[in-house]
Amino acid sequence: MKITFNNITIIGVGLMGGSFALALKAKGFKGKITGAGRNRKNLIKAKRLGIIDDYTTEYADSVRDADLVLFAVPVGRVETIVKSIRKDIKKGAIVTDVGSVKAQIVRKIGPLMPDKVGFVGAHPIAGRECSGIDCATADLYQNARCIITPATDTNKPALKKVIGLWKSLGAKPVLMDPVEHDLIFGAVSHLPHVVAYALVNSIMKVDSGIIRHGGRGLRDMTRIALSPPELWRDICAYNRQNLLRTMKKFSSSVSHLTGLIERSDWAALEKEFRKAKEARQLLESD
Amino acid sequence: MKITFNNITIIGVGLMGGSFALALKAKGFKGKITGAGRNRKNLIKAKRLGIIDDYTTEYADSVRDADLVLFAVPVGRVETIVKSIRKDIKKGAIVTDVGSVKAQIVRKIGPLMPDKVGFVGAHPIAGRECSGIDCATADLYQNARCIITPATDTNKPALKKVIGLWKSLGAKPVLMDPVEHDLIFGAVSHLPHVVAYALVNSIMKVDSGIIRHGGRGLRDMTRIALSPPELWRDICAYNRQNLLRTMKKFSSSVSHLTGLIERSDWAALEKEFRKAKEARQLLESD
Repeated sequence: MKITFNNITIIGVGLMGGSFALALKAKGFKGKITGAGRNRKNLIKAKRLGIIDDYTTEYADSVRDADLVLFAVPVGRVETIVKSIRKDIKKGAIVTDVGSVKAQIVRKIGPLMPDKVGFVGAHPIAGRECSGIDCATADLYQNARCIITPATDTNKPALKKVIGLWKSLGAKPVLMDPVEHDLIFGAVSHLPHVVAYALVNSIMKVDSGIIRHGGRGLRDMTRIALSPPELWRDICAYNRQNLLRTMKKFSSSVSHLTGLIERSDWAALEKEFRKAKEARQLLESD
Repeated sequence: MKITFNNITIIGVGLMGGSFALALKAKGFKGKITGAGRNRKNLIKAKRLGIIDDYTTEYADSVRDADLVLFAVPVGRVETIVKSIRKDIKKGAIVTDVGSVKAQIVRKIGPLMPDKVGFVGAHPIAGRECSGIDCATADLYQNARCIITPATDTNKPALKKVIGLWKSLGAKPVLMDPVEHDLIFGAVSHLPHVVAYALVNSIMKVDSGIIRHGGRGLRDMTRIALSPPELWRDICAYNRQNLLRTMKKFSSSVSHLTGLIERSDWAALEKEFRKAKEARQLLESD
């Protein structure tokens, strides 16, 4: 599928933004990719590595000629940047993002768009705990689902173009209501991240010297605790209600298992473990 | 290093026992490996695959000629089997195990040994969520640490032989007090397993249809929930006190993060995430 944009600007050239640029180039994009960000050294490096063609630390400058503007910064920073550049966005341009929360982003950013500029929220289900431009890869989005979350006022041609773009990059677009998105990912992604951070902290509280004894199980379980703290702080803030609800359910599951162990009710404990194993198999067979 | 046993009996020919047999053969063991278990079909398969040389469903028969008896059944079954076969163990033989809990095993099994039979507890830090003979591999223990937990009454030559055996199989023996072992692995292994089961169950409580939306983070975090429920039930029972203590610490870490999110204290939340990330890096650099 042909990529129908000429000038693409990526705001935030880290793991997600850098991988987006690499994927564009890998899929034959012949236009210009401009990177924008606060860290000039990072942008120089991205250009030197051939990931972006040009860069600027002025967000307003970066969007004037762009047909597509992709936000790949922590979700907490999107609104401020949009407010500072909205008047500079070219008529006919499309603005999109890769943030892990969608309801607040779609509700806040859509209405900030000037006339003839469409915002389309997106969340590619891809990532690594490793962050920054050094971790970017051309195949991060290959075969990954990309959740696209149109609002009622989302411009239809813009939506179609964003869907087409992700297809061109090898991802699998899935349409979803932004509120439903946050409910689901609050449980299957945001909760696990908070649990991973809590697990590490609790092991350190037992004894700070013992974590090194952990095997593959602990490594796998806590790998996402290596994710950038500021990114996950923002995600927790933007999906606070859903996250609190799922954390309550999680705490009650933990309490239930704790109670069974306290009462030495091993038959009931095994039953709970079996229930979890069977549910987890639904994920494995994907 | 030469393997100084002639007849080795493995009680429980699944992932751990089968991998032990495969490793022996891969490292040039020329003696006889006998598999013992309750499931004849499984034993026939293990023999057909060349993993074991002979088999029996009679535990007493399996140990009469053995120089080494390895227990690779769920920890809850070891004591019963030992009681039923102790009089049949050959003088001079060594009995060992691969169980994930050690204090109770060492305390209960050591004194059951007849004269001139030494028991040495061991716990190789290797495993897969996949269980059974089909998952056994010759390299499961390669470069894995193997915790060896002598008690004060452990026969020294037997201890030395078990250390040498694990070295021969490519593992790295580490000596540890059995009580200390259970304290450490209660936190870095048993707690994470219970948390993984609880995480899956809580996601199912939010909505049973959403787990399939999980990405790599959730897969990694819940992979150990695929482990055999009966095995982990026994581990929880045998390490109940330590596990309860670490679960309390974990619950308090979760409550602390929940409180920060409730109060929208994002700076403190980021600090907690950063603390966890830095601690997790201790594990990654191993």
